[in-house]
Amino acid sequence: MSAAAHGAESRADTEGAERQQAADVAHIFNSAVAAWSIAAAWEVGVLDELREKGRLDAPEFAERHDLNRPSTEAMIAALAAVGVVQYERNGNDGNGGTADSDGRRTVRPGLAFDETYRTKALFHWLCRGSAELFTAMPDVMRNGNRTGRFYRRDAEAISRACADIDAEFFKPAFWAAMDALDFDFSLVVDLGCGGGSRLTQILRRHPETRGLGIDIAPAALDLARSDAAEAGVGDRLSFMHGDVRALTPRLEFADVELLTCFMMGHDFWPRENCVASLRQLRAAFPRARRFLLGDTARTSGSGRGAMPVFSLGYEVGHALMGAYIPSLDEWRSVFPEAGWELRRTHFLDTPAGSFVFELA
Amino acid sequence: MSAAAHGAESRADTEGAERQQAADVAHIFNSAVAAWSIAAAWEVGVLDELREKGRLDAPEFAERHDLNRPSTEAMIAALAAVGVVQYERNGNDGNGGTADSDGRRTVRPGLAFDETYRTKALFHWLCRGSAELFTAMPDVMRNGNRTGRFYRRDAEAISRACADIDAEFFKPAFWAAMDALDFDFSLVVDLGCGGGSRLTQILRRHPETRGLGIDIAPAALDLARSDAAEAGVGDRLSFMHGDVRALTPRLEFADVELLTCFMMGHDFWPRENCVASLRQLRAAFPRARRFLLGDTARTSGSGRGAMPVFSLGYEVGHALMGAYIPSLDEWRSVFPEAGWELRRTHFLDTPAGSFVFELA
Repeated sequence: MSAAAHGAESRADTEGAERQQAADVAHIFNSAVAAWSIAAAWEVGVLDELREKGRLDAPEFAERHDLNRPSTEAMIAALAAVGVVQYERNGNDGNGGTADSDGRRTVRPGLAFDETYRTKALFHWLCRGSAELFTAMPDVMRNGNRTGRFYRRDAEAISRACADIDAEFFKPAFWAAMDALDFDFSLVVDLGCGGGSRLTQILRRHPETRGLGIDIAPAALDLARSDAAEAGVGDRLSFMHGDVRALTPRLEFADVELLTCFMMGHDFWPRENCVASLRQLRAAFPRARRFLLGDTARTSGSGRGAMPVFSLGYEVGHALMGAYIPSLDEWRSVFPEAGWELRRTHFLDTPAGSFVFELA
Repeated sequence: MSAAAHGAESRADTEGAERQQAADVAHIFNSAVAAWSIAAAWEVGVLDELREKGRLDAPEFAERHDLNRPSTEAMIAALAAVGVVQYERNGNDGNGGTADSDGRRTVRPGLAFDETYRTKALFHWLCRGSAELFTAMPDVMRNGNRTGRFYRRDAEAISRACADIDAEFFKPAFWAAMDALDFDFSLVVDLGCGGGSRLTQILRRHPETRGLGIDIAPAALDLARSDAAEAGVGDRLSFMHGDVRALTPRLEFADVELLTCFMMGHDFWPRENCVASLRQLRAAFPRARRFLLGDTARTSGSGRGAMPVFSLGYEVGHALMGAYIPSLDEWRSVFPEAGWELRRTHFLDTPAGSFVFELA
């Protein structure tokens, strides 16, 4: 190859690399817009309708749900930009329907739809529940600002997201652990109950059982109370405002045989606090025979190659909040000291690092 | 191929497709976290230090800037997850420095760094200035909520982002248009002046000229006044709170020879309002000889294949706000009616659809 030809090829390589870099950074930007749009599309019903019907006409959907049409179309354009949906081609779509002249009205699930639907609540957690925290990142990082209530999140949105994360990801491992219980229980307490959906499910399967939910977020408890009443278990289910990291013995705790605690175990940490809190739980619930503890541990993947969905947001978010996320090994090391025996661990594929511990 | 082998291959294909889909959706999620982190990294100085020094030690940077160390490391992990930075390998880095045992302290610019640096203000516009709007998407979309001030953005952050967008992208086309002016001017008005940096630049190049900035955001004007004083042009530069869409003749407008207006021209729309506003500007500034109007037009790309950086966020954001973004052709069609002559159009590569019109 001549030097000139070699130079031309190098220039072509450089231009190709620059184009690729521009496309990669545009994709980061567009993904941020799309992530907000995924959370919104779930909340307004677009994702469920697409899953159920396989297609969606944006203007018609907007009209039927009393939504602003340009906003609805723009949200769907954002989903299309990352392959969550795809526009139908012009003309007849093979089902007797026709798209309009520019083919922009009707969408179908795209190549990324199924996985997006499966993980929608993780996007909701990030972009709806935790967005204010991430937006305030440069303020929250400054040591001078990290006093008092130095960040805000949307407790109701977090609660909604966590209910779906629970149902989508933790449920199978939770019920496997529940089905393995070798005793009957008449009273169950859910620590950090959020919107109360886990308790409602337990009480439906166990018609003689009563439940008590404890949470630190009054907004979540309000939602939990109305949902429980709606689900027809309101008479067997009560809720209490409280900090589960510092529970002391009470009359209504005396006969509790089963404790559950999902997606908040990391709030017990750092280590010495966790040991203390778990010991306090032993004392507060003297007859508890089993404690099902499900949460997401720190992964070692941060910043090294491709990361699975959720872990990065979970770990960045908790670093900003000043919350320590223990690894699986750190979790396991704490139980002997805290007076609990780890009987079994169920692992989840998603979110990465998630587990359900059966403690006795 | 046997049917069994074919079946095995199909399963492998399906599993491969599922893995790819999971990786794609994880990348959307991680990009959202990274987009917030890009905006934050710019604001706290990480991007500038990486560009200037070529490497950055996260704990050392955190300490020097009084930032929380886990938050700083987490933000940098998010940048690494999308290739904006890359961790140095363990051991000697070739420059006499060494990384610590897990190689997680020190980062260098990654493959996506240069383009991210170039477009950092677009991320800041999205993730810091407009985040509250995008987070509220499901609320803002509902027709019942679209009355009064139905959305919020961070005016100061928008102003900061727009100053950098202006400097990074509009500046070359702006100065090309300025240098082509065939008359001297002693008084220039910047419509929608934001933080006032354009006026400061003009006055520095034209030491005999006075300037007046008009903006609707009081917070931006406060910033503009202090910046102008700092830049030593405070005595030739004044600022006025006002809505440039509805300006009426004033004594201080009478001798203005040059009008500039950047990144807010779309606020003149819809069409009939734009014609009226541009006519009012003719009347309010009777001696204006040239009007340099720079903005970003609607692209036709939304939802069709790969989109360049910014357009999607810009178009979704304005749809949510109920603001119409005209196309280039729509812009061009309005000038004859509004009493302005389009002399020349300068096009920008980034943001896509951006232009500077020379109007006379």
